[in-house]
Amino acid sequence: MSVRAAVLNGFEQPLLLETFPEPGQLAPGEVLVSVDIAGICGTDVHLWLGQLRIPLPNILGHETAGRIERMGSEPLLDWRGTPLQVGDRVTWASSISCGECYYCRMKKQPTRCLTRKAYGISYCSSDAPHLRGGYAEKILLRAGTAIFRIPDSVSSESLIGAGCALTTAIHASERAPLEWGDTVIVQGTGPVGLAAVVVAKAAGASKIVAIGGPKHRLDLALGFGASAVIDIAELPTAEARQQAALEVVGPHGADQVIECVGHPDAVNEGIVLCRDGGQFVVLGQYADAGNIPFNPHTITRKQLRVIGSWGFEPRHVDRAIRLLENEPGLRAKFEAGITHKFPLGQAAEALDTARRWAGGKTVILPNAEETAN
Amino acid sequence: MSVRAAVLNGFEQPLLLETFPEPGQLAPGEVLVSVDIAGICGTDVHLWLGQLRIPLPNILGHETAGRIERMGSEPLLDWRGTPLQVGDRVTWASSISCGECYYCRMKKQPTRCLTRKAYGISYCSSDAPHLRGGYAEKILLRAGTAIFRIPDSVSSESLIGAGCALTTAIHASERAPLEWGDTVIVQGTGPVGLAAVVVAKAAGASKIVAIGGPKHRLDLALGFGASAVIDIAELPTAEARQQAALEVVGPHGADQVIECVGHPDAVNEGIVLCRDGGQFVVLGQYADAGNIPFNPHTITRKQLRVIGSWGFEPRHVDRAIRLLENEPGLRAKFEAGITHKFPLGQAAEALDTARRWAGGKTVILPNAEETAN
Amino acid sequence: MSVRAAVLNGFEQPLLLETFPEPGQLAPGEVLVSVDIAGICGTDVHLWLGQLRIPLPNILGHETAGRIERMGSEPLLDWRGTPLQVGDRVTWASSISCGECYYCRMKKQPTRCLTRKAYGISYCSSDAPHLRGGYAEKILLRAGTAIFRIPDSVSSESLIGAGCALTTAIHASERAPLEWGDTVIVQGTGPVGLAAVVVAKAAGASKIVAIGGPKHRLDLALGFGASAVIDIAELPTAEARQQAALEVVGPHGADQVIECVGHPDAVNEGIVLCRDGGQFVVLGQYADAGNIPFNPHTITRKQLRVIGSWGFEPRHVDRAIRLLENEPGLRAKFEAGITHKFPLGQAAEALDTARRWAGGKTVILPNAEETAN
Amino acid sequence: MSVRAAVLNGFEQPLLLETFPEPGQLAPGEVLVSVDIAGICGTDVHLWLGQLRIPLPNILGHETAGRIERMGSEPLLDWRGTPLQVGDRVTWASSISCGECYYCRMKKQPTRCLTRKAYGISYCSSDAPHLRGGYAEKILLRAGTAIFRIPDSVSSESLIGAGCALTTAIHASERAPLEWGDTVIVQGTGPVGLAAVVVAKAAGASKIVAIGGPKHRLDLALGFGASAVIDIAELPTAEARQQAALEVVGPHGADQVIECVGHPDAVNEGIVLCRDGGQFVVLGQYADAGNIPFNPHTITRKQLRVIGSWGFEPRHVDRAIRLLENEPGLRAKFEAGITHKFPLGQAAEALDTARRWAGGKTVILPNAEETAN
Repeated sequence: MSVRAAVLNGFEQPLLLETFPEPGQLAPGEVLVSVDIAGICGTDVHLWLGQLRIPLPNILGHETAGRIERMGSEPLLDWRGTPLQVGDRVTWASSISCGECYYCRMKKQPTRCLTRKAYGISYCSSDAPHLRGGYAEKILLRAGTAIFRIPDSVSSESLIGAGCALTTAIHASERAPLEWGDTVIVQGTGPVGLAAVVVAKAAGASKIVAIGGPKHRLDLALGFGASAVIDIAELPTAEARQQAALEVVGPHGADQVIECVGHPDAVNEGIVLCRDGGQFVVLGQYADAGNIPFNPHTITRKQLRVIGSWGFEPRHVDRAIRLLENEPGLRAKFEAGITHKFPLGQAAEALDTARRWAGGKTVILPNAEETAN
Repeated sequence: MSVRAAVLNGFEQPLLLETFPEPGQLAPGEVLVSVDIAGICGTDVHLWLGQLRIPLPNILGHETAGRIERMGSEPLLDWRGTPLQVGDRVTWASSISCGECYYCRMKKQPTRCLTRKAYGISYCSSDAPHLRGGYAEKILLRAGTAIFRIPDSVSSESLIGAGCALTTAIHASERAPLEWGDTVIVQGTGPVGLAAVVVAKAAGASKIVAIGGPKHRLDLALGFGASAVIDIAELPTAEARQQAALEVVGPHGADQVIECVGHPDAVNEGIVLCRDGGQFVVLGQYADAGNIPFNPHTITRKQLRVIGSWGFEPRHVDRAIRLLENEPGLRAKFEAGITHKFPLGQAAEALDTARRWAGGKTVILPNAEETAN
Repeated sequence: MSVRAAVLNGFEQPLLLETFPEPGQLAPGEVLVSVDIAGICGTDVHLWLGQLRIPLPNILGHETAGRIERMGSEPLLDWRGTPLQVGDRVTWASSISCGECYYCRMKKQPTRCLTRKAYGISYCSSDAPHLRGGYAEKILLRAGTAIFRIPDSVSSESLIGAGCALTTAIHASERAPLEWGDTVIVQGTGPVGLAAVVVAKAAGASKIVAIGGPKHRLDLALGFGASAVIDIAELPTAEARQQAALEVVGPHGADQVIECVGHPDAVNEGIVLCRDGGQFVVLGQYADAGNIPFNPHTITRKQLRVIGSWGFEPRHVDRAIRLLENEPGLRAKFEAGITHKFPLGQAAEALDTARRWAGGKTVILPNAEETAN
Repeated sequence: MSVRAAVLNGFEQPLLLETFPEPGQLAPGEVLVSVDIAGICGTDVHLWLGQLRIPLPNILGHETAGRIERMGSEPLLDWRGTPLQVGDRVTWASSISCGECYYCRMKKQPTRCLTRKAYGISYCSSDAPHLRGGYAEKILLRAGTAIFRIPDSVSSESLIGAGCALTTAIHASERAPLEWGDTVIVQGTGPVGLAAVVVAKAAGASKIVAIGGPKHRLDLALGFGASAVIDIAELPTAEARQQAALEVVGPHGADQVIECVGHPDAVNEGIVLCRDGGQFVVLGQYADAGNIPFNPHTITRKQLRVIGSWGFEPRHVDRAIRLLENEPGLRAKFEAGITHKFPLGQAAEALDTARRWAGGKTVILPNAEETAN
């Protein structure tokens, strides 16, 4: 018996379908999951293009939901303490932190764990047990993975439609908490930007301005709770965007600006949009895109807080699930946001679709009939 | 009857002694103070050199203590509610915020008040009532000034020896609170850097490394509570300093790094010294010294908090006085830190001494006999 | 020319309509307002019954909106900096804090100001200028009152329908901030309890259980965002209510419990409903209703935070107005919540209606034709 | 080969010396420690007297330091990541939290862990492997124990002299952080009260008043940093104590009052000592000593925060060790605070000495020659 997976063998090369041996006897705590749906994250595109250092060959896919096929030991509890059973629909935090290092233990910053490893990113698929990414029929979860049983009311589509963008935005919101009634400007309407709108709304922002594009992304932002949107195609200069944004949040700037663009130039524009004494959240700079000219005098004079946030912890997955559980409308929007579905055999096309930013969310359905899309 | 003051008539030109009319009948809330001691702040040097925009002519001096000569109304209370009397030894917050604008009222950031004015900085001495700076025999305080009666145990020398550097450091500590036991690296051993050491010590830092020079400033840092000092003359490269600093605070970097240098390059060095998830306080960038190349990816990846702090509020003066009141040793150190005293007639020399960074603190004693120093 | 007002001359006695002289020349900062609507707050009933110490005779009414008739000086700005004009529709913070005492200045707790005075509560109507309460055709606002120009989109009915309960709940939420996604139990469905539901919802609570009654109040709670309600008539024992509440928030209790009942027994019940390490907000104990038996061991062992909050500050009025401005649905609900309207001449009946807890909010329309209700 | 331990077989009965089999092959992560010194905590007296529920028979002792004799696996790291070796001098957090339950994981309150077990408290000594308390020649630490290698500069005497009172006070300080310069009143001068003085001093309190007795405890409080002490024998009424305390901290009360008495009546006295808007920390109510009459109106009107804190986490042990490492003077004081040392054979006398509150700290030296004291 064997398991099929889409493998990245070389940067910018098409993913290839390969087969791996079905895992044998599982060790205690290990869980074998049959993958229902694997989201394609913007990071996957970066990984594919070789913009971040990862081992090759590699089975990508770190936004995944599926069903438990086998467990290495029982009873096994999910992260919330719910007993797991074969057949349960589950998702999991993509990274495992050690829980023991300086950052995990003393500084409570597990996202900076010194030995953190992420499914779909950090594992070489030529090393046994191979199946450590979501673009595959099955994935083998290590003992210690933060697994979450998905509530019946939450569809896997809504969860993967939200993706790791939502958990990332939730973590950022925790690091830079809004005061209730704060005004917020979100720079960027990619997945993280939209998720930042969702979270700012849920956390009590009074006004939310989303700056980005193209138009269908701005419509999504409005649907997710933005008070106003600014189309960078219509207002191509920072000055014009500033003027439009301040008309909504007031002349002094926003209480919080959340950068979700990724291009480093957005940082200087964002700082201008922020009121004195406000918070500027640098959330989009996941990849090292180089230097910008920057004037640190601004930090002192505007009396700013500039806050970084990296990835997320299991409890942010917990919150994402709870948010979806509580808000049916949100689930429907994230489900509807999935515009492209591919079978595993077309993983390369799926990645290319995501790269071309063609629509909404692209996903792979590894165990669906090869007639999808 | 007339009042003598040292006036800045043109940038980089020597201060000139001029006489102004003694104020007549005071309005309610106004207080006329006979100046005992006026500190020369590093900012005064910047002002003298024309590096910040101020009106001319100008009576400099924003670190001042003196005795009440007349009051426009009685009873008048000091900021803490203590009744003031003629003859009382007093100091005051150098700036007056309006208390009513967006920043004062709604955002509680009075240091960013839209109409804030500072004695010794914002007033043109050719406009009546002229006497709005400390380099003068007398200063006329506006109604609404946050005046503090100085406790008997606190000498005016210790207070002006500490200067506005101490209140500035206290404000920064409030904006970026230490967790008890945190490790701290202070970049710079000018007045603000030394004050940052004092405050970090008082606020419970477990290790404090001061990076700066020259040697006599490092000795002061040790006296004020630094666990270790790094001489930039001995370790001229950022790499060497980093290695030395991390030996004290641990290999991951300090929990908090406080930039008190003013040169923008210190910012990139400071961020490297900060542990992931730590706080980087940008406190020294009071003047606009231009751009640096900066990589915002660092903020996201290191999950930092970068915190600016501007000036101080009256309550920070209150705290500074209380700190000196509680710690006799600290008073003695700040008193001893005054190495140069000049009569008013030598205000130009005083400013030049401060500019040459010749020793410790330089002060003017406007009402002392012309034989000082 | 004279001004009519309803005056409380003796506790438990009917309010009597009296006339007072129209104020003459206004002092700078004073504002004379023609009252459109004055809410009857539960506190007014307590005042009427003599349960709180106030001077008599007294014009009650501390929830008021009206139109500016005259101003003692111009330009006069409202609290947000908007210029005020005759005819503007306004409301104001009912209390004036001194801004200078120990609590106002040093501890930033102006609700504990040592000389705080409230319209409709602290002023004797036999002392000139008499008109210091809302149950009157006109009210004379002192200089220094935090006046707010009401945005066009916000009806005075919605604002007074929300009343000081909303600002009180907003202050409490500031003192005991929710973490986004927290579960909340609100004890009591009087005006403060309902407002606590509104604020918890706006601040990002994931589940809100309201415990109270009667049924029409519980329906309001559901309309305002409660996830579930518990009728104390149906579940008369604390044990039954606890079981029902924990079914919603989970077996360990709620992250935050907000006591809005007023009866001291609610405190012990609320502490039981709170999870270990959670927050218990004591918001309803405005009147001194005496002792309860209490076991302080619970505080230590459950590792609780028990948080008190008293009244509100002008910025909470600001937030209340912004909240209403942003949420049309909320405005409609508060407007609909006004079930009884009385002319000034029937102020005694109005108070009695509020005392009997007959319906929703009761208001007085002092300048309406005497045919109201 | 066998191991001797002092066993509590019945409440209020003398501890009896018994022998247990030397543990055999250790499991991975287990550590066998030869006990150098075991502190007698006030809780041990409560346990002895049967005031808390524990299994019998029981080897008491949860404040312990010793040397590693054997390890079940290598390399084994201490909590800070330092490799452990046979012969290392170590201490450890007395409790093990599961890390997986609702409180450990989701609420980050591991002191409220649902399955927490403490050495010297929760284990029945008749169950193998028996050696789970500090009053013994050896103690067998479970895998997962938070072990700390003690730095060479920190004597075991200073660490056990400080005891779990210090870590308890550190946890409380984390839950109720002082603002720098706050005034503090500590109620009680038992071990926890003295530790609260130490921590308040280290955390930046400006004034610390300790209320307690007898005189030698008050002298210790002064030595540890109290600004003033109040002897309950000299001022037997709450009113007199209040007057004396407010003379030091100011007429409005202290910013923070820390109850470390244990008698529930201290709670009402402490609340009176607290300024409006201040923090009241209920730290001493570890045992359930019953109800007091309590008026919850005070919480609302004084706008208080009442904060409980239970036990401590491993990171508080880390901080305690760092505090001692940084302050030689503190080490000397805690060493000098040990006034009674007993061999293991006199454990019953040791416990009785502690119960009689005869002097300072009492300790057992299980492996010392039987000639101690």
